[in-house]
Amino acid sequence: MFDLIAFDADDTLWHNERLYQMGRDRFRELLSSYSVQGPIDELLDQTEIRNIPFFGYGVKSFVLSQIETAVKLTAGRISGHDVTALVELAREMLTAEVELFDEAEQTLAQVSSRYPLILITKGDLLHQQTKFEQSGLKGYFQHLEVVSGKTIGTYRTILHKHRVEPSRFLMVGNALRSDILPVAELGGWAVYVPHELTWLYEEVHLPEGLPDRCFEVERIGLVPEMIERIARERGG
Amino acid sequence: MFDLIAFDADDTLWHNERLYQMGRDRFRELLSSYSVQGPIDELLDQTEIRNIPFFGYGVKSFVLSQIETAVKLTAGRISGHDVTALVELAREMLTAEVELFDEAEQTLAQVSSRYPLILITKGDLLHQQTKFEQSGLKGYFQHLEVVSGKTIGTYRTILHKHRVEPSRFLMVGNALRSDILPVAELGGWAVYVPHELTWLYEEVHLPEGLPDRCFEVERIGLVPEMIERIARERGG
Repeated sequence: MFDLIAFDADDTLWHNERLYQMGRDRFRELLSSYSVQGPIDELLDQTEIRNIPFFGYGVKSFVLSQIETAVKLTAGRISGHDVTALVELAREMLTAEVELFDEAEQTLAQVSSRYPLILITKGDLLHQQTKFEQSGLKGYFQHLEVVSGKTIGTYRTILHKHRVEPSRFLMVGNALRSDILPVAELGGWAVYVPHELTWLYEEVHLPEGLPDRCFEVERIGLVPEMIERIARERGG
Repeated sequence: MFDLIAFDADDTLWHNERLYQMGRDRFRELLSSYSVQGPIDELLDQTEIRNIPFFGYGVKSFVLSQIETAVKLTAGRISGHDVTALVELAREMLTAEVELFDEAEQTLAQVSSRYPLILITKGDLLHQQTKFEQSGLKGYFQHLEVVSGKTIGTYRTILHKHRVEPSRFLMVGNALRSDILPVAELGGWAVYVPHELTWLYEEVHLPEGLPDRCFEVERIGLVPEMIERIARERGG
């Protein structure tokens, strides 16, 4: 029933948002000595989201937004030492070890034995390639696609390149906005695996529930069973 | 004789290093009010090159290295206002208009009428895609490959993906280190189009001259003629 199955990486196969939370914690600590007024997290979020069209996604973008926000919040009083600490935070985040989710590898082993897999991840090219190399999961995938955003157009281009019809494509991921909704809109299938930590930007409210051809499972380990259920019940 | 011809983009088809020179000029101006000691450009270059394994290539990486260097050179005295000016510089560089070289478009028109073309460019994914879209040159290429570095392995992967033998591949570019030498080492062909501005990192000294199967032309407009000459003289 499927010619191609794609997985998202960050917070679908391995921890990611946790690292950004650490970066946010570090940011609040760093600003705590400046008696800053105002909601630090909200202002950082706003700066990040405003900078996406320029800087895109990823650690360098995050830290540039932190630096910008820190200057604003401290009215320029932030010390050179603390600015350097943020550049150092970028290096730390970019070299953090990849930590796989429980059952991620066995899930890929199972699904890849029946379907060709690709990994579709957005963000910084070098960082995503490095994590892919370090993850030990490379062997399960035919291909890595690092993209600058995940819109309908992105998925259309990828499917075109792999000569796959949307109706024979299934995407697995933790972000409704990036992994699930655009694939559903294109006529594909999706398995949504929510993660407890989700970046504000990815949050979507769905009053009517998931669209048609989208299914939710509690954890990555339940994905193979769900794919087989979809293939069995909807395949013919 | 060739199944695939690839072009580099930055400083081969459009201006790029000029923008970084502007960024360096801005950086020196900004530091001029701090009575800084030491060779500013050299220290920035060193920081940039040291940060490549973490930050990769591109504007965000460049500006993070500027911020780090500025704190160091001013012994932490750099003002918040000037730090913000550097973040602003990043946004300015990332949205600068793409300026094509004279004869770039007619060169692509000529070569693409005889061979399939791809564009291989290293750096920031979002920025390179944006420049590709804005360049007006998209129609001449079958494919855009944004890579995190240009090593022999990079070219091997690309040729494998396109199912092309190295001996039937030719690369056109301005950087010996990235565009010419790895392709020659892999057994491919290369046309070197030097550019007056070259980043220190890309500079290579070749006491013995260009390797076999590499040819130099003075400007991009002479590339079609050189490709035909190679095909004619070496093709059989």
